[in-house]
Amino acid sequence: MAVATQSLETQCINAIRFLAIDAVEKAKSGHPGLPMGAAPMAFVLWDQFMRFNPKNPQWFNRDRFVLSAGHGCMLQYALLHLTGYDSVKIEDIKNFRQWGATTPGHPENFETPGVEVTTGPLGQGICNGVGLAMAEAHLAARFNKPDCTLVDHYTYVILGDGCNMEGVSGEACSLAGHLGLGKLIALYDDNHISIDGSTDISFTEDVSKRFEAYGWHVLHVKDGNNDLDAIAKAIEAAKKVTDKPTMIKVTTTIGYGSPNMADTSGVHGAALGDAEIALTRESLGWEHAPFVIPDDVMARFRQAVEKGASAEAEWNQALATYRTKYAKEAALFERMLSGELPANWADALPTYAPGDKAIATRKTSEATLNALAPAVPELVGGSADLAKSNNTLMKISGDFQKGGYENRNLRFGVREHGMGAICNGIALHNSGLIPYCATFLVFADYMRAAIRLSALSEAGVLYVMTHDSIALGEDGPTHQPVETVASLRAIPNLYVIRPADGNETSGAYKVAIASRKTPTLMAFSRQNLPQLEGSSIDAVAKGAYVISDDAGADLILIGTGSEVSLCLDAAKKLRAEGKKVRVVSMPCWELFEAQDAAYKESVLPKAITKRLVVEAGIEMGWGKYYGADGDMISVSGFGASAPGGRIMQEFGYTVENVVARANAL
Amino acid sequence: MAVATQSLETQCINAIRFLAIDAVEKAKSGHPGLPMGAAPMAFVLWDQFMRFNPKNPQWFNRDRFVLSAGHGCMLQYALLHLTGYDSVKIEDIKNFRQWGATTPGHPENFETPGVEVTTGPLGQGICNGVGLAMAEAHLAARFNKPDCTLVDHYTYVILGDGCNMEGVSGEACSLAGHLGLGKLIALYDDNHISIDGSTDISFTEDVSKRFEAYGWHVLHVKDGNNDLDAIAKAIEAAKKVTDKPTMIKVTTTIGYGSPNMADTSGVHGAALGDAEIALTRESLGWEHAPFVIPDDVMARFRQAVEKGASAEAEWNQALATYRTKYAKEAALFERMLSGELPANWADALPTYAPGDKAIATRKTSEATLNALAPAVPELVGGSADLAKSNNTLMKISGDFQKGGYENRNLRFGVREHGMGAICNGIALHNSGLIPYCATFLVFADYMRAAIRLSALSEAGVLYVMTHDSIALGEDGPTHQPVETVASLRAIPNLYVIRPADGNETSGAYKVAIASRKTPTLMAFSRQNLPQLEGSSIDAVAKGAYVISDDAGADLILIGTGSEVSLCLDAAKKLRAEGKKVRVVSMPCWELFEAQDAAYKESVLPKAITKRLVVEAGIEMGWGKYYGADGDMISVSGFGASAPGGRIMQEFGYTVENVVARANAL
Repeated sequence: MAVATQSLETQCINAIRFLAIDAVEKAKSGHPGLPMGAAPMAFVLWDQFMRFNPKNPQWFNRDRFVLSAGHGCMLQYALLHLTGYDSVKIEDIKNFRQWGATTPGHPENFETPGVEVTTGPLGQGICNGVGLAMAEAHLAARFNKPDCTLVDHYTYVILGDGCNMEGVSGEACSLAGHLGLGKLIALYDDNHISIDGSTDISFTEDVSKRFEAYGWHVLHVKDGNNDLDAIAKAIEAAKKVTDKPTMIKVTTTIGYGSPNMADTSGVHGAALGDAEIALTRESLGWEHAPFVIPDDVMARFRQAVEKGASAEAEWNQALATYRTKYAKEAALFERMLSGELPANWADALPTYAPGDKAIATRKTSEATLNALAPAVPELVGGSADLAKSNNTLMKISGDFQKGGYENRNLRFGVREHGMGAICNGIALHNSGLIPYCATFLVFADYMRAAIRLSALSEAGVLYVMTHDSIALGEDGPTHQPVETVASLRAIPNLYVIRPADGNETSGAYKVAIASRKTPTLMAFSRQNLPQLEGSSIDAVAKGAYVISDDAGADLILIGTGSEVSLCLDAAKKLRAEGKKVRVVSMPCWELFEAQDAAYKESVLPKAITKRLVVEAGIEMGWGKYYGADGDMISVSGFGASAPGGRIMQEFGYTVENVVARANAL
Repeated sequence: MAVATQSLETQCINAIRFLAIDAVEKAKSGHPGLPMGAAPMAFVLWDQFMRFNPKNPQWFNRDRFVLSAGHGCMLQYALLHLTGYDSVKIEDIKNFRQWGATTPGHPENFETPGVEVTTGPLGQGICNGVGLAMAEAHLAARFNKPDCTLVDHYTYVILGDGCNMEGVSGEACSLAGHLGLGKLIALYDDNHISIDGSTDISFTEDVSKRFEAYGWHVLHVKDGNNDLDAIAKAIEAAKKVTDKPTMIKVTTTIGYGSPNMADTSGVHGAALGDAEIALTRESLGWEHAPFVIPDDVMARFRQAVEKGASAEAEWNQALATYRTKYAKEAALFERMLSGELPANWADALPTYAPGDKAIATRKTSEATLNALAPAVPELVGGSADLAKSNNTLMKISGDFQKGGYENRNLRFGVREHGMGAICNGIALHNSGLIPYCATFLVFADYMRAAIRLSALSEAGVLYVMTHDSIALGEDGPTHQPVETVASLRAIPNLYVIRPADGNETSGAYKVAIASRKTPTLMAFSRQNLPQLEGSSIDAVAKGAYVISDDAGADLILIGTGSEVSLCLDAAKKLRAEGKKVRVVSMPCWELFEAQDAAYKESVLPKAITKRLVVEAGIEMGWGKYYGADGDMISVSGFGASAPGGRIMQEFGYTVENVVARANAL
């Protein structure tokens, strides 16, 4: 097709395609197939529907766009560049996938303004989209007034076959259907090709019917390669259905335009090569050199700058009006957007004295959550169907449900992985909402890919994990974490905190709430734990501290969580034998490692080499704290099914054994 | 209802219910609700349909039963006891959830003969069921003859709302529909109650429609509490549809029979208490004391013993005939069932010499898999849509597909978690099949819950994980493992092996294939690696070994995988400077820890305290090997998107840096 006969729209679409083709070719690495096939839907969406301000990527009321099929990131970089985001210049596209570029191999919100969430691991993005839409629905219900709308945006997601095969997407989409999130619109790039070839070899289900079963509004664009009008009409129809999310299946051809590679898995994840690119230029009628965008094409895309500025200006006016009419709500709203926490919020944290009742930390967690609920109104969250076991309900609020989006208790169902990914979306809505989510600690395994993405994408999610050791008892080894805490400590940029009692629980939340770019995972006990002499809210932020000490101590007992009281009891006995003992509570490795050398030395002096660590978990990584002359009481295999007390005894978590092992040093 | 008017069937069902009620009450812990509601479907299934031999739980051709809703394990223990399994005596039921009992809090195949797979973590069991059905379909296609059927059993699964909410079940069920596994029959205990209350709060999708979308045959029994005939007819109908798996939605009442607690979440996971139990006895007309089973009820259940013996005898005859007519096939079949590997299978492992071409270990893995494919005919497996990147296709076989079940290449689609759980099912079919599965190493996170269950349930699955470090390059931090190897080393009973070259790859498979009760996870490189002087197939089984040494060495460089060659290159340079250096290749911690003290000392002598570990991953756990005077070149945060060579350089994985850090010791 000669370029002269092409509509400007087609040229715009080809501009996206060739930025992708040429950037991948220059990098000799990347995924051209999806951008080539999905460019038409993306263009229609960004050109006709998406509201955003390229010059202020964080404008609150923008529509959110998520490329769940993150490998096709050149699609997103092309759109960002063409519509005028400063984060992606043409040089950045030429530097695609190179050291230090803003155009990494998969979209990363922390590298590239304009990218909302980090995608690539398949299925995550659509779940993030559910979270973004939940955040919007919640804020709209809380802040909008009949005469003044502050919160009103859509969440658009492009997802592929891979996303739809991943179970995590099913979890979140089932919940999205249940919740009736009408402003979530997913475009399914139905190109029937995955890496191993045709989806015929493993994925022949009826995806549309499945989404209907979830309660979604489902549409189909049969020719997603050429029928721009059908794409636009489908998005319009989607917007009209306000009580259901919409899935638009858009049938496309992967690598559209490549004469020899279109509709094959060969075009999915590799550069096309010079010869095929030449043929593709010919076939698509694109006569421009790599990275050259004709003026009229650029002008069309750059309309977004003015449109965006005026959309934001209009919204700013609405905000000004809102501020006048609803000063209190406006103050809260603007404080939340600013990312500032309420003044003195931490004063709400419960405190405990040594005489107080022994309580499970999952219950002191409940008390803390409920104390924070009024003090930190941006806190929203819930459990994967274990609200009563994880103790995560905020009593001052009802359930976030269709018709009750203003409520703050989220009901995730038995969907741990989707829950984590949804919370990432809520956190990265960047409207100040602080999401928490909960399950049994051992089921962190189910949601680990989402936890990793919280850490990588700087989403300050709170993970409230209860039943944190073999001491949970009868449920047995399938439910007993032994390696779980260690495996979570392995994740960079994640605080893993195992509080010893009520004060440390408050301390854990104090860190977690304040920590907006590092997620926090808190491990709470099922069993009751005493309120400890010497425990401290503020010391938790230091990761480890001396909770009990003798002058001239030459032995350190180091415990975490439920084992701190055991260490303290053992210390008493050792002291009765004339020993001089220090007990260190070490709720969080990562925070301790962040302290200066002097503080670390003050807690764990090099000179005291007799050290016994007591933790009801595996030994891995503790060596650096107990050292060459130290020892640890740890669990070396899986747990067992029996009452918790019996298990702790059988596994050596007794005062007698701690004393014996300490004396053996 | 007075007992006199009750049918024997109803009494049998009540016997199951009260064993569950009374065992949970005695333990003051457990889940009575599901057994009370699902007892009718379970009774009909075990009484009229299931073929099994209580006196030989491992009889090969038995129907497989999986309680995917594993918390309802008292249902399964009651059935095992009543039908005459020796593993569950009445004393064992009285010891439910106690230390050392065969009746742990969730069903565990390694504790209780008659339990096929370990369930409890929701959604896993139905996926295991898909694996069991795939194993049956595969063996039937390979071994059955027109005149002689050896392999012919059903796989029955009871799953609940929780299982159906978990994404992992969707993954496996979509694949089961695609594969048309006609002998998989799932009974969905539709009791519309989960722990947090009615499923109305989070799970309102149309499950039947979703399974239809997957390509399943779907039926509905509206009154699963009373209509035994409808249950039986549904199972009959399910058996008649041979080209699709069947999902029978059986609508039931959780805690059926409890006047005050039925149909509430209160009966899900707690003992009913004496008063409510008395009322339930009255309401169900059960006049027997706890743990007392009337003779006629017992006699009815125990018919299973004779039926089972005669079913097995009949099958033994078929096997005898088969042996005569098809001696070669019978020999293979019986060898597989025995769990013996073929004689001299390890001779097929490829060997490499230092002069040989540098190849990525994912490619030496491919060569090994293909060398083993003919030598180990029980090897079956595949990738989660990354066959060409993970290099996991066996060239001598086609794809396991509907109409081609005899083939050994499995096509899992982008379904890592379901893949792992399916492989657990294949392994625990206990027919000698050795399953492997593959994805990028970082996506071990997606399937971690299944990997943990491989380890816990002693399923000797091979995990073939490629792209094992930041060196994979451009795909960036979402795809780059940094903490992944460490987090996997944390799992008990799992060999994590990171081979350095072709010989070590063969060595890894040599361990993995032979290791039928410990799963093995192998981490392979994307990038080419040289064939190393001194590398050894057999030494891999020792976990670590001296690959290069100087007499009088006072410095040890310890590497794994791709960093071993770096250590060897650095050693050369250090030697040129006059240093005496030992290089240790340490592909597997767990195997090294299993060696005797003398061997360990011979590799890492205590006297040599200058030790530098080089691994492209986090430091966690390495301290015990490099010690107080040693050091490590590790990765402390997430990776980056750039060409792999550049990344390795930026992160300090260069000869210069290894030399400098070694000299600094």
